[in-house]
Amino acid sequence: MTTRRYTVIGAGAVGLLYGTRLAVAGHPVCWVVRTGARDIRANGVSLSSVDGDLRIEPDQVDVVDDPAAAPPSDVVLVALKTTANDRLADLVGPAVAAGATVAMFQNGLGVEERVRVAVPQAGQILGAMCFVCAHRRSPGVCDHIDYGSVTVGQLEDGGRGGIGAARSLVDDLLASGTDASLVDDLGAARWRKLVWNIPFNGLSVVLDATTDEMLADATTRSLVVGLMDEVILAARSAGHEVAPTFRDEMLATTDAMTPYAPSMKLDHDAGRRLEIDAIYDAPLAVAVSAGVPMRKVSVLRDQLRFLDGRATRSAGTGSVSGP
Amino acid sequence: MTTRRYTVIGAGAVGLLYGTRLAVAGHPVCWVVRTGARDIRANGVSLSSVDGDLRIEPDQVDVVDDPAAAPPSDVVLVALKTTANDRLADLVGPAVAAGATVAMFQNGLGVEERVRVAVPQAGQILGAMCFVCAHRRSPGVCDHIDYGSVTVGQLEDGGRGGIGAARSLVDDLLASGTDASLVDDLGAARWRKLVWNIPFNGLSVVLDATTDEMLADATTRSLVVGLMDEVILAARSAGHEVAPTFRDEMLATTDAMTPYAPSMKLDHDAGRRLEIDAIYDAPLAVAVSAGVPMRKVSVLRDQLRFLDGRATRSAGTGSVSGP
Repeated sequence: MTTRRYTVIGAGAVGLLYGTRLAVAGHPVCWVVRTGARDIRANGVSLSSVDGDLRIEPDQVDVVDDPAAAPPSDVVLVALKTTANDRLADLVGPAVAAGATVAMFQNGLGVEERVRVAVPQAGQILGAMCFVCAHRRSPGVCDHIDYGSVTVGQLEDGGRGGIGAARSLVDDLLASGTDASLVDDLGAARWRKLVWNIPFNGLSVVLDATTDEMLADATTRSLVVGLMDEVILAARSAGHEVAPTFRDEMLATTDAMTPYAPSMKLDHDAGRRLEIDAIYDAPLAVAVSAGVPMRKVSVLRDQLRFLDGRATRSAGTGSVSGP
Repeated sequence: MTTRRYTVIGAGAVGLLYGTRLAVAGHPVCWVVRTGARDIRANGVSLSSVDGDLRIEPDQVDVVDDPAAAPPSDVVLVALKTTANDRLADLVGPAVAAGATVAMFQNGLGVEERVRVAVPQAGQILGAMCFVCAHRRSPGVCDHIDYGSVTVGQLEDGGRGGIGAARSLVDDLLASGTDASLVDDLGAARWRKLVWNIPFNGLSVVLDATTDEMLADATTRSLVVGLMDEVILAARSAGHEVAPTFRDEMLATTDAMTPYAPSMKLDHDAGRRLEIDAIYDAPLAVAVSAGVPMRKVSVLRDQLRFLDGRATRSAGTGSVSGP
């Protein structure tokens, strides 16, 4: 095994789960966290997982609170909420050595393009889509409840590092116990994930409901279908291959899933800001450009903005997540 | 003054407010109520109103719990929630003498057509749109907070009673202290009311927000505008004259209003069933027929159906209002 060095920005559920597995598999991993570094240094990292618990002892854990203090690495794994993406230059940039791979473990659309601009010295930019149910219990402690697969694609064809960087990340994830796969069309993969995320994340917040409740009710099931159809039409109009039948696959998959509170609902319930920019605003902008405004999706986005704004105002500060 | 006899079906806020004024003005008024008749007989009727308190003593009040027991009257004023409209034949029919006027003091669209079919012996069918902030505190006790105007139109041109019945009702309301006016196009008036009701009633429930909160937030204000535009387009496509500028009038009016929880929010907060059929389903069906599906409105309708279904399931019984 090539022991590529990893920097993981963020120690939320995603950063802890995949970072811990990579570390235990033998890769040097340094976490960059905004708060909680002292707790992690004192207590180490604990992963309680359906696929096997893992532990990093305090004297083995590498954690810093300043991205400039992270040692140079081959891959910078960005596991921030997208609500932090207006600060990528500051939060990620100083940790990225010239030519290093940056992998965006985030939801939504357009996040790879943002980091390309914000961190120009990066080599290959990768997008990673996680299908996982996990949450951070406390600093350095992650509960991994279910699922966990990761799909990886690259922003640009060939060029700076080519498909090699994506392939290497997939190999490292697989070797560390994560079900990972490579896709050749990152845009299509991002849109396919939105076919699920747009209806279920938003409705779970607005209706305070879980996926099984929404699908058991004929009206909300039909609403989910209508939202999915808008997303698929927008994806296709923007040039991405998503089959119209993909909607029924997603419904069948979700019917078979464990009842699940989507990440946006967990965020809202915990008073964290919602990832509206990446999951709604960016796709809506693309859809308008493609001539197929997603009218139903826009209602959901507007409702989420209102609820997010009210929650943020009442909480005083908008973010308790991130690094 | 011609002392027309009135039967008022329902003793919620609307039935109590306008019925009490008519009774105090000298019209014989009999209320038909499903529950609470004994309380009203024992305690009379009390109206606490911004426009002047009124009182009917127990020995002066006429209340029955069976519509067949109501004495024959000239006008049957239907002040039920539209959620009871699948039972109009039973709840209203027995109280309507052949040729009597039936006035639907309800929200939404299509309610006059329903009572025309359900109560075939009725004479003229009128629609009455109330712009009022009031609620029933307890049986026979109404708090009238603000506003109170009533707009009256007739279902059919001429024919059974002609405009005379609508004119007479307006005159009686005016003489009893209610700001009332006559419209010659009931359909257009119903749609104009929907321009307000569709965005504000639904969003107030889904977002748990008052009108001022929704208009102060730029995103929800824009969402309200988008919903209003869909309703106006549907009204015009269905042949009703609603000026495109009506939207801005409604916004300005609402900006100037006292912060207000729409009736649907009061219903939801009290665990009562929502008037989705009349305010959403009926207009959506007309819009589809007219070739202009109201896609944004349909999202709101679907969300309300889900929330209403969940609330009804958890409450066990769906209605605590009505007669």
